[in-house]
Amino acid sequence: MAEYNLQAEREFRGLLKERQAYEEALALIQWDLRTKIPAKGADQRSEVIGFLSQKSYQLSTSDRMKHYIDTLKSRPSNENIKRSLEECEEEYNRNRKIPEQEFKEFTMLQSKSETVWQKAREAGDFKLLQPYLEKLVDYNIKFAEYWGYEKNRYDALLQIYEPGVTTELLDDVFQKLRTSLTDLVEKVNQAKQKPDSAILQKHFPKSGQEKFTTEILKRMGYDFEAGRLDETIHPFAIALNPQDVRVTTRYDEEDFRMAVFGTIHEGGHALYEQNINEELALTPLATGTSMGMHESQSLFWENFVARSEAFWINHYPLFQSMAPEPFKEIAFSDFYKAVNEVKPSLIRIEADEMTYSLHIMIRYELEKALINEEIEVKDLPELWNQKMEAYLKVRPKSDREGVLQDIHWSAGDFGYFPSYALGYMYAAQFHQSLNKEMDVDEAVRSGDFGKIKHWLTENIHQHGKLKRPLEILKEVTNEGLNPEYLVNHLKEKYSKIYRM
Amino acid sequence: MAEYNLQAEREFRGLLKERQAYEEALALIQWDLRTKIPAKGADQRSEVIGFLSQKSYQLSTSDRMKHYIDTLKSRPSNENIKRSLEECEEEYNRNRKIPEQEFKEFTMLQSKSETVWQKAREAGDFKLLQPYLEKLVDYNIKFAEYWGYEKNRYDALLQIYEPGVTTELLDDVFQKLRTSLTDLVEKVNQAKQKPDSAILQKHFPKSGQEKFTTEILKRMGYDFEAGRLDETIHPFAIALNPQDVRVTTRYDEEDFRMAVFGTIHEGGHALYEQNINEELALTPLATGTSMGMHESQSLFWENFVARSEAFWINHYPLFQSMAPEPFKEIAFSDFYKAVNEVKPSLIRIEADEMTYSLHIMIRYELEKALINEEIEVKDLPELWNQKMEAYLKVRPKSDREGVLQDIHWSAGDFGYFPSYALGYMYAAQFHQSLNKEMDVDEAVRSGDFGKIKHWLTENIHQHGKLKRPLEILKEVTNEGLNPEYLVNHLKEKYSKIYRM
Repeated sequence: MAEYNLQAEREFRGLLKERQAYEEALALIQWDLRTKIPAKGADQRSEVIGFLSQKSYQLSTSDRMKHYIDTLKSRPSNENIKRSLEECEEEYNRNRKIPEQEFKEFTMLQSKSETVWQKAREAGDFKLLQPYLEKLVDYNIKFAEYWGYEKNRYDALLQIYEPGVTTELLDDVFQKLRTSLTDLVEKVNQAKQKPDSAILQKHFPKSGQEKFTTEILKRMGYDFEAGRLDETIHPFAIALNPQDVRVTTRYDEEDFRMAVFGTIHEGGHALYEQNINEELALTPLATGTSMGMHESQSLFWENFVARSEAFWINHYPLFQSMAPEPFKEIAFSDFYKAVNEVKPSLIRIEADEMTYSLHIMIRYELEKALINEEIEVKDLPELWNQKMEAYLKVRPKSDREGVLQDIHWSAGDFGYFPSYALGYMYAAQFHQSLNKEMDVDEAVRSGDFGKIKHWLTENIHQHGKLKRPLEILKEVTNEGLNPEYLVNHLKEKYSKIYRM
Repeated sequence: MAEYNLQAEREFRGLLKERQAYEEALALIQWDLRTKIPAKGADQRSEVIGFLSQKSYQLSTSDRMKHYIDTLKSRPSNENIKRSLEECEEEYNRNRKIPEQEFKEFTMLQSKSETVWQKAREAGDFKLLQPYLEKLVDYNIKFAEYWGYEKNRYDALLQIYEPGVTTELLDDVFQKLRTSLTDLVEKVNQAKQKPDSAILQKHFPKSGQEKFTTEILKRMGYDFEAGRLDETIHPFAIALNPQDVRVTTRYDEEDFRMAVFGTIHEGGHALYEQNINEELALTPLATGTSMGMHESQSLFWENFVARSEAFWINHYPLFQSMAPEPFKEIAFSDFYKAVNEVKPSLIRIEADEMTYSLHIMIRYELEKALINEEIEVKDLPELWNQKMEAYLKVRPKSDREGVLQDIHWSAGDFGYFPSYALGYMYAAQFHQSLNKEMDVDEAVRSGDFGKIKHWLTENIHQHGKLKRPLEILKEVTNEGLNPEYLVNHLKEKYSKIYRM
């Protein structure tokens, strides 16, 4: 019987390997599609994506898969197999609980709706998108019912992106965070001395920006023998396998912040994927454990390292040596403050680290209410604008810079947004824990990122999906989700910058 | 019954589409592997290649495939379906006639042998490779017997690369060609005035070379919206689909000829794939009809266009404007002659257009004799060297620059080499036919490549595999394979350059 089990485990691993092969091919195609593909090649390529995705999906919902789950889950021979089976079972159930016909209709609606969203956004006309969004919300409600939940229907969706996190927890945490953040933003608004990021907008040729960001990636410990850096329109990091994790960026020659902070952000994602324990290779565990945990890694490097005073004390001379003449005239302290300007604004992806989470909460509150049928899609634009005014004191002039700005909902994704804010809070909690073991600022100031990277790998990266997000948080920080650390970080940092 | 047939045709087309999806994914992986992949990523990627290749192979030899072939071949509704069925049936038979176990062993031997070849070549030690080559020859003999042939066992292998061409035909044509070429080479050797290619070896930065070759690709009609140009070690062109055909090149800053003639050569291959009739898309017919025909297209552009006096009359000023100072001092006539230097040498891929075919004939004679068991693998090095002396008057000092220089045999490929020389002859025949319709040199001199590209597309490219190579040759030139045109081209061109 034990022998039989080992044989079954070998076969199960074979099945996981097949799945991984499809996913690796798909990841390469996605990378190419967003970095290299010639314009005319994309049409046919999307057929290939459709075909390979279907093959991968079929494997995940196959009778073979079900057979191994049933055979092995009562006595897996190690933790790796046990967690792989859990992941496969969750996915199997998630996919099989939806009637095939509904899933097909939903998929078609998603892709149609994304196209409509682009048009609606260009036209600033929410009404174009409304009927599609209504259907997408209905499908998500139906799916949530198929999947089941304990207390709140929205929990069923949340699990896909942040397993273990509940609506109850988010309501509590977000409320505290919101109060503190709106208070802080108010203080910033009233500050008399404000940094001015306009001084940063000087021409900086791409080649110099590339040189600087490449150097920083190397110093972070990003392994260029297991990755590469390319240009794209909407930057991302993507893992083809743990030995091939690619970063992309975008150079704005009139504003280096896009490339510098963007590359470091994506580099944080990439470090996570590059440093997963090799033993997890070729299983569904060889990737980041959740969206939020992934974001914690990118934000740790972007905000807690690269936007810190310590970082620029060390790197400003290097930056100036690679930057054009006009940057040489900017005093260090003006520069540091300028890259940390806080300014409530309309667009989430342009938001600073203090206001960003407020953008997320607006989305969270609205999508939670939609899924629980407390509000209607048609009322979204007005509700959006009201919340923007309440939390950020700015009001969009058109839906284009309001409710239509993000792709997520039109792509059918509800429950995803909270991950971004969770990432901020996780990162702050990790930062605090790391500070107990070493003086982080001192390490950053001395340019010794190796110790930091090592700590992140030991505590977070290596585990992949072997541990769930809240499990990692608890082990590393000795407590649960707690927004205080983020608030304290922001208070401390910005009270200096804004003298408030 | 007609309805049933149409339904079966639709399903057959669906099957072809699936096959094409695997092949397109594999082509992208191959391109990436040779241009972009980080060093550590390759190991896992080769597993993915293995998996997807197996899936594609399984489709081509599946019972579903056999079913459609049998159902449809008696009355296909159009020529496209008819020829697709023929291609599928040939492939099905070719693969199914080999016992599965033997095919597996052969595939493993191939990959092992390629690795051994690299070591043997580095060490210049043929004995390392010999046992592998012996087995590979044995397999090829067995396979040829499974596949069958009419007159010569070697024909069975030739069909894979150049359908319709026989050993009998090659023996006849190559003998004529050899006599003429050795005679011409003899004359060149005795010429008193010889061009000196050393004058071309001046530092030429990569960026300038890239600018020039990109401009030439555009003028040739290569569509950059359906392709791109990247760097690699061993340049190639690859079609992912007809809307995405990529060219690669290599820049040698001390010798621009590598990139300039190499890119134009690969551009010729790419033009073929970019201009196949759209109606053939997603069938096995949407590619070049044979290795030889493909080579005719690359060589047409490389030798009959880019190495012509007419080409440089037009493009030398452009070249000089993009090249560094020292090139400005080289007189046009010295430059033109230097890029056409003829010099018998040891390495095939470095050979000039006059001696190249002699390199091919040596390989042809040896592999034909091996497959027909007239010589033994162990005698290859000595036989190689003897033939080199007889045909080219040079003798390798080591097997590294002799029998070990090419990868083909160690990769298990026998019957492939003749295609290169066929490409030269086809190209010369096409050149002659085109000359009847327009003054090619005049068109090249005026930079009007559009007319030339149009003629190649109309006569060759668009047909893909709908027509077989000798069928195209006959239709375009009104005769069969004839080496005279190549000989005449060389005589005429080089009697001027070498005043002989």
